[in-house]
Amino acid sequence: MSKKNRLIYLPLGGAGEIGMNCYVFGYGPEGKERLIVVDLGVTFPDMDGSPGVDLIMPDITWAAENADRIEAIFITHAHEDHVGALGHLWPRLKAPVYARPFTAAIATLKMEEQGQPLDVIRVVKPRPEVVEAGPFKVQFVPVSHSIPESSSLIIDTPAGRIVHTADFKLDGTPIVGEPFNPEEWYRIAREAGGVKVLTCDSTNVFSPLPGRSEATLADPLSELIAAQEGMVVATTFASNVARLKTLAEAGRAAGRSVCLLGRAMKKMITAAVETGVLTDFPAIIPPEEAVEVPRGNLMLIVTGSQGERRAASAQLARGKYLGLEMKEGDTFLFSSKTIPGNERGVIRVMNAFSEMGVDVIDDHNGLYHVSGHANRPDLEAVHDLLAPKILLPMHGEHRHLREHCRIGIAKGIAAELAINGTMVDLTGNEPEVVEFIEAGRTYLDGSVLIGAMDGVVRDRIRMALNGHVLATVILDEEDQPLGEAWVEIMGLSETARSGASLVERIEGELNEFLDTAGDKVLRNDDKMEEAIKRIVRQVSMEEVGKKPEVTVVTSRLVAE
Amino acid sequence: MSKKNRLIYLPLGGAGEIGMNCYVFGYGPEGKERLIVVDLGVTFPDMDGSPGVDLIMPDITWAAENADRIEAIFITHAHEDHVGALGHLWPRLKAPVYARPFTAAIATLKMEEQGQPLDVIRVVKPRPEVVEAGPFKVQFVPVSHSIPESSSLIIDTPAGRIVHTADFKLDGTPIVGEPFNPEEWYRIAREAGGVKVLTCDSTNVFSPLPGRSEATLADPLSELIAAQEGMVVATTFASNVARLKTLAEAGRAAGRSVCLLGRAMKKMITAAVETGVLTDFPAIIPPEEAVEVPRGNLMLIVTGSQGERRAASAQLARGKYLGLEMKEGDTFLFSSKTIPGNERGVIRVMNAFSEMGVDVIDDHNGLYHVSGHANRPDLEAVHDLLAPKILLPMHGEHRHLREHCRIGIAKGIAAELAINGTMVDLTGNEPEVVEFIEAGRTYLDGSVLIGAMDGVVRDRIRMALNGHVLATVILDEEDQPLGEAWVEIMGLSETARSGASLVERIEGELNEFLDTAGDKVLRNDDKMEEAIKRIVRQVSMEEVGKKPEVTVVTSRLVAE
Repeated sequence: MSKKNRLIYLPLGGAGEIGMNCYVFGYGPEGKERLIVVDLGVTFPDMDGSPGVDLIMPDITWAAENADRIEAIFITHAHEDHVGALGHLWPRLKAPVYARPFTAAIATLKMEEQGQPLDVIRVVKPRPEVVEAGPFKVQFVPVSHSIPESSSLIIDTPAGRIVHTADFKLDGTPIVGEPFNPEEWYRIAREAGGVKVLTCDSTNVFSPLPGRSEATLADPLSELIAAQEGMVVATTFASNVARLKTLAEAGRAAGRSVCLLGRAMKKMITAAVETGVLTDFPAIIPPEEAVEVPRGNLMLIVTGSQGERRAASAQLARGKYLGLEMKEGDTFLFSSKTIPGNERGVIRVMNAFSEMGVDVIDDHNGLYHVSGHANRPDLEAVHDLLAPKILLPMHGEHRHLREHCRIGIAKGIAAELAINGTMVDLTGNEPEVVEFIEAGRTYLDGSVLIGAMDGVVRDRIRMALNGHVLATVILDEEDQPLGEAWVEIMGLSETARSGASLVERIEGELNEFLDTAGDKVLRNDDKMEEAIKRIVRQVSMEEVGKKPEVTVVTSRLVAE
Repeated sequence: MSKKNRLIYLPLGGAGEIGMNCYVFGYGPEGKERLIVVDLGVTFPDMDGSPGVDLIMPDITWAAENADRIEAIFITHAHEDHVGALGHLWPRLKAPVYARPFTAAIATLKMEEQGQPLDVIRVVKPRPEVVEAGPFKVQFVPVSHSIPESSSLIIDTPAGRIVHTADFKLDGTPIVGEPFNPEEWYRIAREAGGVKVLTCDSTNVFSPLPGRSEATLADPLSELIAAQEGMVVATTFASNVARLKTLAEAGRAAGRSVCLLGRAMKKMITAAVETGVLTDFPAIIPPEEAVEVPRGNLMLIVTGSQGERRAASAQLARGKYLGLEMKEGDTFLFSSKTIPGNERGVIRVMNAFSEMGVDVIDDHNGLYHVSGHANRPDLEAVHDLLAPKILLPMHGEHRHLREHCRIGIAKGIAAELAINGTMVDLTGNEPEVVEFIEAGRTYLDGSVLIGAMDGVVRDRIRMALNGHVLATVILDEEDQPLGEAWVEIMGLSETARSGASLVERIEGELNEFLDTAGDKVLRNDDKMEEAIKRIVRQVSMEEVGKKPEVTVVTSRLVAE
């Protein structure tokens, strides 16, 4: 007797955080559902929690273990937090990847960088084209966002229609890409028995006013740039092709030659031009030419709106970059907002420019930047337009998802707060949590993938907080100390509060211990190590007030 | 022939950053000026730049080397960034410390904590009381700020009058402490030949609207608290005694018992009551009683507005604290703003509360918090009122000081941007930079003071980013390897990309090296170490894509 089919939803990333989006949908008998994966994104490390880590991505162990059930991977748009993990995680899933042309171009770069096959990427046209993936029929619906070709997905299943918004805003004049089309959304809500489930972006749920259009920036930016006398340098997110265009056009209108700096930006522009998304970008000049242009006739558009150390803005803040240099009387514009957590880096860049006499203009009043996400009233408009039975808020921290649920519930929609790892059964009229899957984070650390809970990064954080002491002891064939204990320290003050040498103080105590320790201890590596660690920590605490990490190396000579 | 007397200004902390204020003024012959020090503050470490550090304070080497010339230390108010380093740095300066009663009480705690003498602290009354300190005559002028008894200093010198604002705002109704008194400031500007030099707070120079009074918060806070059904927990800066009072009164007015949680808060309240600054604080109950009060009748006021891990708010976000626990339907209020750089910690607390079903209210629109610093129009009002010849903006990052200079210059005031370490001669009508002194940061790291550039913390950051490999080699009496190389790793993946063991791969390469190395290398510690480090880094890069820090321990057995 076969089990009943069910429709499931399982977020593996992005539900409980802003970043590393990854959502799984399934349909079929329990435990045998055929699956699709929507997005494989990354999030970025920071010194607080993930020092030295290169990228953070969802722990997809569950999906990898069920790779044979995965029909397809869909990428909604080309932001790093939606496509950045593709090259790293695809080898564990090995399903065809569907995306629209611009997104597919970026996805191809991601696969290429990791030496993965490129022919698994299939380019899709927007609705009415349909991708059949097992029991799922999927259509891409163009939506406006801060990158070209962002798409919502219509996922039709035998149990009803799902609309997965992905990242979106309601913009009737998005400069690049398709405007928001309420008639189309109205139709979507009236086909196929209506929308059963809405999985919906929650990023801006706390923004109380309706979002503003990308087009509102053209005039303020043009006026600002026209009013400057020196060189103008503007930064924004590299992938915000519409903004790049608006900035470049404002520069040209002010009689300035425009030069783009930063690899990420050039990659995006190239992909946008090659895929036909961007057809009329103003002429740009290379840096070699830009150095010859008088400052008042020059505008640079650069990467590094978040103060990233290696981006063009930070390079300019440190001095010359590709022959270009900022000077007193120049203007630096952040046409962007600072993502929470990046403040320190951005402020560092601002002050470096201040030291050069450069005027820094940021976006305190939203005059020079608009968000790419739907604000609260926009979310409500979408709820009303689509009239889903079930709402699953996604792409947000816990507080965003919770607030979004509240809005849905107030409208009489059955909303469920499902964070990463929560499997929800959507077969009935109410969402039902059926299982919790181990979800978490995988780190790209150098060239290897490690689990966030593996302890590797925890050890690094501990060394950063406490310092590291290495104690070496050599024992002879009879398990007696040979010579004295040797101590090396790293990340601790050499001089103790008393003025003594920390190393000498520790070595002294260790030698005293070795001199008096009985054979029982000296013969037992574990006991020795435990005792040595205790002594090192105790002396360090007394002398410098810190309890360091300790590594003990006990070398035993063996009779040959 | 005696040299001419001159008046000098030398910021050692706070000019080029917000935090760790420390300003030196001097009068006398060049190089023999008699000195006073204004404030000895700290700033707080972060994982990005100072992991594991306990406190950051100014490098006062110059002042310490000239300690015999220091007549007095003045503390303007009891905020950590003005008094926090007193106990640590006083032993190197050893001058009498002047402060008003509440500030002196906190200063006494700082000295006590570090085992320093308490009788050097002298309690001063506000103007007209005058402290004579060598050539300086100093008066404390009450100003409003976000802590009781904040004071500007009038520093009269043979070369003219200096007004050092310290931290201030213009508040006619500050709830606790003296209101801003424009008549008094008008008089100050007309005595003693007028104000020659204004050293002025720059923190809020980018805030375009006039600052609002502490008193404007009473109604919104009362309405908010009265409207809640569950327990209300509010956090603010522990030292903002006026806010604590407003919050407590709003709680009492809503029929709630009020309980304070957090050591820092209790310390402040105690000092404020004992010094008579606070006379009518509402009745509070201890936590033991609070646990018995129905949630709807209870209000907690807690420390931890910046998401600090050990403060009461973070403890409540993790679970029970002193028997008290937050639950669904409770409300948590941030009556504070997040200091840039603290966003991650604050957001962590917000989401933890969201998971508990607690509603978090923060201060998006300034309804529940006002700043303690003068905004741009307020700064301009002070410039106009005092009409100084010279303006030295202080307490601000470079961008704040620069903007503040501009405002002064636009008014025809001779303004100078002097960052930490810049000695300015104020004898003439124009400020003149005469010397650059080595200035920087001193870290309290555990119980020892270390220089920020000593390399200790740099090594910790490197270990956090790169991991740490320890390689041990033992050589016998003839400088031949005894046994095999031994490698330990910390903070690196044990398994390489290839699946091999990283330790085994490194050990294998090291043993191969030892087997083939000539005597010339084996007999030379430096050459050995260099070669081993190179091999470790190379193998690590190949296997896990990281270049670790490497410590090599070479043990040579000696013939007995």
